[in-house]
Amino acid sequence: MFSVTVRDHMMIAHSLRGEVFGPAQRLHGATYVVDVTFRRATLDADGIVVDLGRAAEALRAVVAEFGYRNLDDEADFQGMNTTTEALARVVADRLAESARAGALGDGARELDGLVVTLHESHVAWASYERQL
Amino acid sequence: MFSVTVRDHMMIAHSLRGEVFGPAQRLHGATYVVDVTFRRATLDADGIVVDLGRAAEALRAVVAEFGYRNLDDEADFQGMNTTTEALARVVADRLAESARAGALGDGARELDGLVVTLHESHVAWASYERQL
Amino acid sequence: MFSVTVRDHMMIAHSLRGEVFGPAQRLHGATYVVDVTFRRATLDADGIVVDLGRAAEALRAVVAEFGYRNLDDEADFQGMNTTTEALARVVADRLAESARAGALGDGARELDGLVVTLHESHVAWASYERQL
Amino acid sequence: MFSVTVRDHMMIAHSLRGEVFGPAQRLHGATYVVDVTFRRATLDADGIVVDLGRAAEALRAVVAEFGYRNLDDEADFQGMNTTTEALARVVADRLAESARAGALGDGARELDGLVVTLHESHVAWASYERQL
Amino acid sequence: MFSVTVRDHMMIAHSLRGEVFGPAQRLHGATYVVDVTFRRATLDADGIVVDLGRAAEALRAVVAEFGYRNLDDEADFQGMNTTTEALARVVADRLAESARAGALGDGARELDGLVVTLHESHVAWASYERQL
Amino acid sequence: MFSVTVRDHMMIAHSLRGEVFGPAQRLHGATYVVDVTFRRATLDADGIVVDLGRAAEALRAVVAEFGYRNLDDEADFQGMNTTTEALARVVADRLAESARAGALGDGARELDGLVVTLHESHVAWASYERQL
Repeated sequence: MFSVTVRDHMMIAHSLRGEVFGPAQRLHGATYVVDVTFRRATLDADGIVVDLGRAAEALRAVVAEFGYRNLDDEADFQGMNTTTEALARVVADRLAESARAGALGDGARELDGLVVTLHESHVAWASYERQL
Repeated sequence: MFSVTVRDHMMIAHSLRGEVFGPAQRLHGATYVVDVTFRRATLDADGIVVDLGRAAEALRAVVAEFGYRNLDDEADFQGMNTTTEALARVVADRLAESARAGALGDGARELDGLVVTLHESHVAWASYERQL
Repeated sequence: MFSVTVRDHMMIAHSLRGEVFGPAQRLHGATYVVDVTFRRATLDADGIVVDLGRAAEALRAVVAEFGYRNLDDEADFQGMNTTTEALARVVADRLAESARAGALGDGARELDGLVVTLHESHVAWASYERQL
Repeated sequence: MFSVTVRDHMMIAHSLRGEVFGPAQRLHGATYVVDVTFRRATLDADGIVVDLGRAAEALRAVVAEFGYRNLDDEADFQGMNTTTEALARVVADRLAESARAGALGDGARELDGLVVTLHESHVAWASYERQL
Repeated sequence: MFSVTVRDHMMIAHSLRGEVFGPAQRLHGATYVVDVTFRRATLDADGIVVDLGRAAEALRAVVAEFGYRNLDDEADFQGMNTTTEALARVVADRLAESARAGALGDGARELDGLVVTLHESHVAWASYERQL
Repeated sequence: MFSVTVRDHMMIAHSLRGEVFGPAQRLHGATYVVDVTFRRATLDADGIVVDLGRAAEALRAVVAEFGYRNLDDEADFQGMNTTTEALARVVADRLAESARAGALGDGARELDGLVVTLHESHVAWASYERQL
């Protein structure tokens, strides 16, 4: 199995609802360093898993949509806690849509799956892995 | 599949028995930077894999038990080599016990598995992965 | 010249005023990984620059004061932009006060200076260096 | 499942054929920081996955063979694109041969698989995972 | 003293002349992860050392000029060894020109100095520091 | 001012005397990831600060001397606390001797200074800087 990973980041504000979150129930924020890993059983005719340039652009589009925003005010996140693990899934699902829509090139239709990891600090991170 | 990871560290002395270990047969030591990854198929009602605060406390308890000690003198490690991979398993098994005992909260009973990685330097690390 | 550094982090929300900040004029947030370096020409009788435990506690107190907050609402930051470089100075000045107040131990009065670095992402960070 | 990982690096020149590569079609180069992970279900009698010293030597032999070279001129790479993911497979296959040939010790015959990750920058890396 | 740092990277081919370089006399390559630190005694009216967006663009322009090239063929580098430390100086001098030409904004004329660090691997890097 | 840095590591056991050290008064250990930075105002005829190969060998010799040992038993360390900052000085002084003895090549006599940083964990490190 092959994989390639690209990294970008986004800086957001949010608050979390539930006693389990302690002080994180207050409005605060995070820098998420975002790693997206694309998995594929075989390489395409060019010898790649996916066009890295397009993959980086697709990731950039997602972090540009969420970045520099207060997620508490975004329609997409009403009624859910924007925890690091929940956001990892949202980013993964957006990139899966991009892949299906052809934004990563024709070869991306051969991808088997992807993993999104959001690093919230030097001591904590979360991932979501899904098939394509 | 979702996962969250927390990081802590411990500083220990030990020696290893067996010609394969060369100079590491002498009493020496290591800083282990310890990453614990908790895996779970779905998020709980709060939108999390596990309470990060409790997970960090459970890890802190384990590294506090082993840290600042000579493992050669600890009863738990008699008759075994405390290699990085063997210690990764010990840490994982301790955290699995903590989860079963409820120290990570009720939701932790839904965890599928965990991975413990011990980084012994910038060029070597070892992991142990187990189910819960 | 000797130095020791300790690392911690804080997660905050804020917005920045001024066209130069582009989308960062909106309410957003950041994880700041904070490194504090203490400098001293000679070691004390114990062979240290400063008590690392006390230094870590003093840093923990500062990040606990600012962390999990919206800096736009904090009285201390009215009328200033909480840029990464400006916050580095605030953290440095707080720690200088702690040192003078004896929170880092008697030996800390021999410190020559300190540097605070705030990492806002994997591709950007800022520092403030001052004397003590 | 246990694993151990060792890290080394190699610096090479190459060019890539295909419009998808844009400016990387020109002769350029890369530092690949190479991580090799060896997986094994159980530890051997010494309590290890594989002899770390021999594993590091085997990896060093591979990076010495490719390093400080223009891959475009190497017979092994004629007719293929030396993308990061393709090179990860080449490194993995060489190490699998080393393991089979006994270069990693007798215990290495019990290895289940290995993963090779090549980091080409702080924002991109690729992996190849195979069984042994 | 304040400073801010931005990071980018470039991938180049080159060879080095002189017995001291051993195998690096052959055509090979490198990924340079490039950190540029801008120093300034006081912050401007916006509370910044320099416009981070413009600083990142200026750095991007420099790495785009050198990246994906064989430095042995570039007119700028004839008659010199493109060692990591020598390249750090070239990058620093280019950015100093950009600052003087106004590419970093008017405030950049108040900068005191800059430091360029080129990381060639996880175990080696070089810097050049200059005044502005 | 130019500089180049090389990294290696050593794994040692030791204990520290003095109440300030708390649990670190017990026999324990550490992995020290060691960075050595060599500073020089101008480059030599080859375009370098120092021969990186020789610098790495000189550092390797120092970490081989101390590594895989209990520093409490070493004659060189009797009567002193082997704190991270104190060890940084010992490593720096050894490398200064190597430079003076010609082990880094003739050009090394032009070095202005060096800095040794010992990373004891992902959250703490210490440095010693000296002239040559």
